[in-house]
Amino acid sequence: MNQVSASSLAASAGALDRVRVVLCRPSHPGNIGAAARAMKTMGLSRLVLVDPARFPDDEAIARAAGAEDVLVHCQVCATLDEALVGTVMAIAMSARHRNLGPAPLQAREGAAVALERTNEGEVALVFGNETRGLANEDVMRCQHTVFIPANPDYTSLNLGAAVQVLCYELRMAAFAERPPVVTRTVPFESPPASFDDVERFYAHLESVMVATGFHNPSQPKRLMPKIRRLFGRAALERDEINILRGILDAVQKRLR
Amino acid sequence: MNQVSASSLAASAGALDRVRVVLCRPSHPGNIGAAARAMKTMGLSRLVLVDPARFPDDEAIARAAGAEDVLVHCQVCATLDEALVGTVMAIAMSARHRNLGPAPLQAREGAAVALERTNEGEVALVFGNETRGLANEDVMRCQHTVFIPANPDYTSLNLGAAVQVLCYELRMAAFAERPPVVTRTVPFESPPASFDDVERFYAHLESVMVATGFHNPSQPKRLMPKIRRLFGRAALERDEINILRGILDAVQKRLR
Repeated sequence: MNQVSASSLAASAGALDRVRVVLCRPSHPGNIGAAARAMKTMGLSRLVLVDPARFPDDEAIARAAGAEDVLVHCQVCATLDEALVGTVMAIAMSARHRNLGPAPLQAREGAAVALERTNEGEVALVFGNETRGLANEDVMRCQHTVFIPANPDYTSLNLGAAVQVLCYELRMAAFAERPPVVTRTVPFESPPASFDDVERFYAHLESVMVATGFHNPSQPKRLMPKIRRLFGRAALERDEINILRGILDAVQKRLR
Repeated sequence: MNQVSASSLAASAGALDRVRVVLCRPSHPGNIGAAARAMKTMGLSRLVLVDPARFPDDEAIARAAGAEDVLVHCQVCATLDEALVGTVMAIAMSARHRNLGPAPLQAREGAAVALERTNEGEVALVFGNETRGLANEDVMRCQHTVFIPANPDYTSLNLGAAVQVLCYELRMAAFAERPPVVTRTVPFESPPASFDDVERFYAHLESVMVATGFHNPSQPKRLMPKIRRLFGRAALERDEINILRGILDAVQKRLR
């Protein structure tokens, strides 16, 4: 192997290292093990569990087969917000169509989008509970939803199988022949804002909208989901968060 | 849906009906159930078991979830030869490279080849035992081998997960290159804002930023170009302009 392709392989592997698989409230430890195994077969290693029903558990270890190392190093969180700290993008896995959030991507498109964003930072793929899927408030924290094209009469993939398909598409995208990355210089461009930066902006904006009487949280009328959709499309950068929050600070100081 | 796309959909579904999934000597009934579920999610229905260790079995039914019908209609054979009767092509799933048979195909290529051959007759995808894989004499009965690109340090997909990936690629191939059937409705979407709507929003925002002291037009520091870049990326819609200007109105009314 020549040096160029060796460094390109290393770059592909590095991209997969920047993808977290987040399982929200999984019920069955066997599925946690199956997810760990699915990840490792595709070269992913970073598993995050949000409020698992049973973990650690022997069934998870049994189903992980040779991927116990993924379980050993997994992170257990109380909330999805905690699981997403430091990510620049989160993609929610959802078989259902929702009345909120951005238009869904097919798994293959979603993997390509996720992989591209690993150039800028860490990316999360977020999977819901085996029976209930993700809650709407979980989906709203993500910038995209992704679905696995399936038989319309029976869309119910096993959780481990869904993780396998997404991780497989990520690996296929990571190791596909890619045109060399052309660095575009965009005027004013700054690094992407992190999940937590963006959440703090939403909270700040909401408090200003309440203080001015524009927004009544007891009659929310889908205002925050609409605002999340707008700024989600823009994929905010760090400097932009500073500008927006600067405006909000200035407004707050002048409110009577 | 027009007649052309309806008949194209029926043709895609018909192609999947001509693919058999053959599991050779599976040890664990749970994997048989997982394979049935994986098949049904992707619109496949014809499962063939060669000399299974335990079948029928409650664990197979439990793991099949809503795909018991695939188990009920599955065919149990004593030998692979029996399982392949009537097929025009068989593809052996194999993670290992062998010193026999034709060059292996990646899963995506293999699915495309299999699908093309369904125009001529029935096709089989042949999977081996969980631990030992396929015997050489099994592989020699097939015209192609196929592998799932994987982490070279850990290639061991669970049997059900491997069936899921292959069936997923078959479905992707079967339903590719069709115009989208469903017009995606994007939640909250409204018509795009006109140029003049957007300009009035920028002017309104600028006046609020000046009034709060955040922005000094005599020292503009590229603030407005940065704001135009942010909202330009979002491609604002008419309803969003109304929300943003509503916020600005509310702020103006409350400024001291």
